[in-house]
Amino acid sequence: MSVTFATATAPASVGNAAVGFDLLGHALSAPADRVTASRISAPAVRIASISGSRHALPLDAGSNTASRAVMALLEAHRIDVGIELTIEKGIPLASGLGGSAASAVAAVVAASALLELDLTPEQLYPFALAGEAVASGAAHGDNVGCQLLGGLVLATADRLVPIPVPEGLTAVAVHPDYQVNTRDARQCLAEPFDLATVVAQSSNLAQVLAGCHQSDIELIRSGLADVMVEPRRAALIPGFAEVKRAALEHGALGASISGAGPTVFGWFVDQAAAESAGRAMIEAFADAGLVAEAFVSPVAAPGARIVEIG
Amino acid sequence: MSVTFATATAPASVGNAAVGFDLLGHALSAPADRVTASRISAPAVRIASISGSRHALPLDAGSNTASRAVMALLEAHRIDVGIELTIEKGIPLASGLGGSAASAVAAVVAASALLELDLTPEQLYPFALAGEAVASGAAHGDNVGCQLLGGLVLATADRLVPIPVPEGLTAVAVHPDYQVNTRDARQCLAEPFDLATVVAQSSNLAQVLAGCHQSDIELIRSGLADVMVEPRRAALIPGFAEVKRAALEHGALGASISGAGPTVFGWFVDQAAAESAGRAMIEAFADAGLVAEAFVSPVAAPGARIVEIG
Repeated sequence: MSVTFATATAPASVGNAAVGFDLLGHALSAPADRVTASRISAPAVRIASISGSRHALPLDAGSNTASRAVMALLEAHRIDVGIELTIEKGIPLASGLGGSAASAVAAVVAASALLELDLTPEQLYPFALAGEAVASGAAHGDNVGCQLLGGLVLATADRLVPIPVPEGLTAVAVHPDYQVNTRDARQCLAEPFDLATVVAQSSNLAQVLAGCHQSDIELIRSGLADVMVEPRRAALIPGFAEVKRAALEHGALGASISGAGPTVFGWFVDQAAAESAGRAMIEAFADAGLVAEAFVSPVAAPGARIVEIG
Repeated sequence: MSVTFATATAPASVGNAAVGFDLLGHALSAPADRVTASRISAPAVRIASISGSRHALPLDAGSNTASRAVMALLEAHRIDVGIELTIEKGIPLASGLGGSAASAVAAVVAASALLELDLTPEQLYPFALAGEAVASGAAHGDNVGCQLLGGLVLATADRLVPIPVPEGLTAVAVHPDYQVNTRDARQCLAEPFDLATVVAQSSNLAQVLAGCHQSDIELIRSGLADVMVEPRRAALIPGFAEVKRAALEHGALGASISGAGPTVFGWFVDQAAAESAGRAMIEAFADAGLVAEAFVSPVAAPGARIVEIG
């Protein structure tokens, strides 16, 4: 008997990871989005419901990241079936935690299981990417890649490259109750970048990648800073400088904006340091008048997975 | 009895390595510069002679990369001795093969041995860098770093990070008899770079670094291309497009400008491929009216070393 429904979860993620704009990201163990894909008789992709979000999300299948991702999957595989999606948003909207990507990822993972296609994360990647592009206006894999594979991932145009990280490396992502529009955050990147800034940022990227591969904490500490994008976006987040300082004062190897913000993240050598920093970062947001919550997670957190099938 | 002279060689190198402008470079097994440091009674750094160069190089100790590097070393260690340098240039001038860096590197390695200081490559790095800055107008370690350590090296402001490469990885560097002025080559980088170009180049850098660490040839092939600097400098090198095409048609994983040019390099999975491509690249330069010579070398070529001491 064939599968009639499949439910997948996809984790939130830290996009850009300070040094790999649009390229690098890592999964978080929480929060997550959850999508159920069920067969329906009508030959179309539909959204049954979206729950868990305070904000209205498009129920129109052509405008929603999850349904668009599934449509791309069906089209590429020339499969003419009807699928209904039930979306449970666990990731706050416009938080910089990759929420739109996670819905697309959970949807293609669920649809692939429903259709018994047995596709690898890399095979699902272009479809999740196509879905996420609906929300962000451009296809970039920094969130989608790590949400599919788990851990820290380099997502190129057509490949997902897992990047090993030192044992125990832990992130905290502190999300304030405040919205930064992704398109606004991109607008401040329209002006070009001078060579010195690009070289400094490339040096940081290279140090983080070499440090992760060589399990060299000091090299990661030396590189984990965004000297290119963060200076232009910092002003969009109330209290950013103080929240970052709180992270660094509590042992962060580096701290920066997650995705387009307003979430601020840091990396730490262990969970205790991340938890202590998280509390200080929440306080710093409070000083700026914002209520915030902290998510502590291994950088090598698991990726999307099927949680129910029937 | 104390040492009275020491002779060191430092290899040519491929600066930038296509994806790491000012940051990444690798040594070549040939050509090399050779510097002898000898004790003299006068408390000064002097240049006895410079041989092997068709072009006049400054004999004034304050203007020469080798002597300036030794002066920086003596100053930092508060050593008040006289040293005379004999410089044998094996690396063609203004070739993009790191010749001015190599003289500085060989000089500090020789001086360190002469003074029995027993300094590590990383301890010698700031002095060689200070020397090289005299010639290039700025301190950047892409040549100096790999010439000191050997192999492929990420050179940050204060660290040398060896990057492992796949077994057998071989470079060819093809040097035409033509000069590109380093300062001219920098001038065309004055205009800033748009975000899309920077992200594409960062993706290439990340792929090459991950590919080298993970010994993944296809990842290196996918990343080894300069989409940022090369397009602006290519026109400074007669026949560049044809020479690059010859490399790629003969199996290069990627090919680009070495340093500021005019040398063009490629990376290959083995020596046979590099040799065959080298011949084709020499022919392509000939079609552009230039006589060229090819240097084939492991990417993991050895760094500077003492060859004589007494």
